[in-house]
Amino acid sequence: MTALTREDFLKLDRGDQLAPFRKEFYIPKGVIYMDGNSLGVMPKATAARVREVTEVDWAHHLIKSWNTADWFNAPRRIGDKIAGIIGAEKGEVVVTDSTSINLFKAISAALVIKSDRSVIVMEGSNFPTDNYITQGLVAFLGRQHKIRFVEKDGIMDAIDNSVAVVSLTDVHYKTGHRQNMKAITSKAHQQGALTVWDLCHSTGAIPIDLNEIRADFAVGCGYKYLNGGPGAPAFIFVAKRHQDKVKQPLTGWWSHRSPFDFTRDYEIGEGINRMLCGTQPIVSLCALEVGVDIMARADIHKIREKSKRMGDLFIAAVEQKCNDNDFDIVSPRPADQRGSQVSLSHENGYAIMQALIERGVIGDFRAPDILRFGLTPLYLRYVDVWDAVDILSDIMVKDIWKAPKYSVRVAVT
Amino acid sequence: MTALTREDFLKLDRGDQLAPFRKEFYIPKGVIYMDGNSLGVMPKATAARVREVTEVDWAHHLIKSWNTADWFNAPRRIGDKIAGIIGAEKGEVVVTDSTSINLFKAISAALVIKSDRSVIVMEGSNFPTDNYITQGLVAFLGRQHKIRFVEKDGIMDAIDNSVAVVSLTDVHYKTGHRQNMKAITSKAHQQGALTVWDLCHSTGAIPIDLNEIRADFAVGCGYKYLNGGPGAPAFIFVAKRHQDKVKQPLTGWWSHRSPFDFTRDYEIGEGINRMLCGTQPIVSLCALEVGVDIMARADIHKIREKSKRMGDLFIAAVEQKCNDNDFDIVSPRPADQRGSQVSLSHENGYAIMQALIERGVIGDFRAPDILRFGLTPLYLRYVDVWDAVDILSDIMVKDIWKAPKYSVRVAVT
Repeated sequence: MTALTREDFLKLDRGDQLAPFRKEFYIPKGVIYMDGNSLGVMPKATAARVREVTEVDWAHHLIKSWNTADWFNAPRRIGDKIAGIIGAEKGEVVVTDSTSINLFKAISAALVIKSDRSVIVMEGSNFPTDNYITQGLVAFLGRQHKIRFVEKDGIMDAIDNSVAVVSLTDVHYKTGHRQNMKAITSKAHQQGALTVWDLCHSTGAIPIDLNEIRADFAVGCGYKYLNGGPGAPAFIFVAKRHQDKVKQPLTGWWSHRSPFDFTRDYEIGEGINRMLCGTQPIVSLCALEVGVDIMARADIHKIREKSKRMGDLFIAAVEQKCNDNDFDIVSPRPADQRGSQVSLSHENGYAIMQALIERGVIGDFRAPDILRFGLTPLYLRYVDVWDAVDILSDIMVKDIWKAPKYSVRVAVT
Repeated sequence: MTALTREDFLKLDRGDQLAPFRKEFYIPKGVIYMDGNSLGVMPKATAARVREVTEVDWAHHLIKSWNTADWFNAPRRIGDKIAGIIGAEKGEVVVTDSTSINLFKAISAALVIKSDRSVIVMEGSNFPTDNYITQGLVAFLGRQHKIRFVEKDGIMDAIDNSVAVVSLTDVHYKTGHRQNMKAITSKAHQQGALTVWDLCHSTGAIPIDLNEIRADFAVGCGYKYLNGGPGAPAFIFVAKRHQDKVKQPLTGWWSHRSPFDFTRDYEIGEGINRMLCGTQPIVSLCALEVGVDIMARADIHKIREKSKRMGDLFIAAVEQKCNDNDFDIVSPRPADQRGSQVSLSHENGYAIMQALIERGVIGDFRAPDILRFGLTPLYLRYVDVWDAVDILSDIMVKDIWKAPKYSVRVAVT
């Protein structure tokens, strides 16, 4: 194979149909941002939208905005837009609360439907909140539910007819490995189990077709590839066929059949409203909507193609420019098996990432030894991938990362 | 008694030590805002703060702001500030999630401590979400818990030694009646029960001293008297003496002992962190903090004195200027028994409130017949109270409210 050059990457940028999206985002000067899988960048339109919500809708129109600015309906309105991004129908998604709380609702609801079963299949190395929430739920219920922890290769075999729920994340937060959502969902259904899919690292990065694979429940966050802002509210999906029988325990007034009747007794609401609970943080919700609107205009298949190509090129450039024994490539080589990130491992990964960040290449580190590089096709250019690897190889060749200042640990979400 | 005149109200404004606070808030021209008990107005400083959080901290510093802008610590930082407003210590309050979800956590945690008991005492006419959440929790647990619904006069007698939890709201959302928090808490403790206090209509309006009355758990919202913005995150209080034994089922990663270790198994965190769950909506959180900071500078005793006086004068002015049979005064006459609102009843209350709103007096309506007028001493003037009643009496005398357009119902939160 001919050695790659910077010109190859510039050429790809010139032919990139997604390139015009980059100007819709604020990218700080001198930064190559490869952490959009943790916190997406800010759409330029968000600034004006947030000002409108606060300085006009809240400050000027006050309480009336619950109706006139459609605040009360925001969870459904934005949910419908996200539905279009993940292969769901209108009325199958609401935006509300956090991913953790939505996982609690989804797994609770699935356990109610499958009340004759006791096993929950999960991946032990999944993002911790998925496991913690389920552990908390099981402990609280105290009804002999069991979590069957497996790793990726053991998932299919772990799904038998004792399983109530299979709760997994599509793209692994640390390694970028993808699950086979379709095969796992199909196996779960064959065995009479339900699925809860965590789409935090998929939504806006990978074409997801929840109804095509007959997914049951799903959740995901707003602050990664949807560019919704720090801690943006999360979403929850419930397939239409389950909606008239789902129950979840967080029965706040927004999930009531008639919240404004102010009755004493709870009456369960209709459809996806059942997944709501209390009053939602409107400023953060409206900020999220701007990112969702941009994503809804983009072609998710083009996003995926660019992401896969960027990942392949990132790996090729690392192999070309870094020493063979600098890094292990943790993410799968075949692009189809990879989410929108490439993870490398190095025992001094923390210090290397700090040195990269100081040079303007922002990825992140996950203990004990993983360097994550997020690939966000709407605002990352091919040439950024080349330049990032260039800086990485410089840091390695010159041993820059060995400076003591880079080894001082600071926790980052 | 001599008839009140507008000059009397103007004179009170001239002597009002809280008057300087009004200029810190954005009050739309031509509006007398008496709905701060539903959605507080926007502090002027909020606009700049929200711009900073979005356009600088997020847009420019991106992921680093989790540390450098102290985002990760925001729930505790703002919680400590609210603690000072409600008679709690630092480390006893976090700001997070919604009131509904925090009620779920608090009641769950209390039921775990009182696992040998089964009765939950609640007020049937309480704000619905308090009851709905408890009904959902009880149904989900399926362990023979019973809700004992009583009304205000029956509360003390309902607390016997079968009671696990007494869960009440200090100030009634509809009538403005206050509970006797101290006496009820004391009775609960005598009977071996725990208390969960909902402070939504008290925080920032009434001096609350949670530790003086030995409260166990409390929750409250950020968007009423704290002026935190629409759907601002809520808070939860757990008394220090309970913190090393409380457990709640929403065990997301922010409640873990070491969230950044990314371990497989949940280990319960320290202190008030146990009440956290998932990632929080930072833009809405930081907007709330501006309102909390203003409240923390104000003298809550002066706020209460002005609120009581405004309530007395509102009632006196209604009695002077409206016909005797126009309205029933639903709120208690003795100011000590009243929260920071005055509620009137009228069978055509909805239409009357719509006519008032069109004339710039913004209160709200609660079915079937309650007109609520919130009194917010930091930004409402005495003369506003006079002028509001003046407009109300005009609407009544001239039968303006009878215009058909005012009777078209629109739901408002």
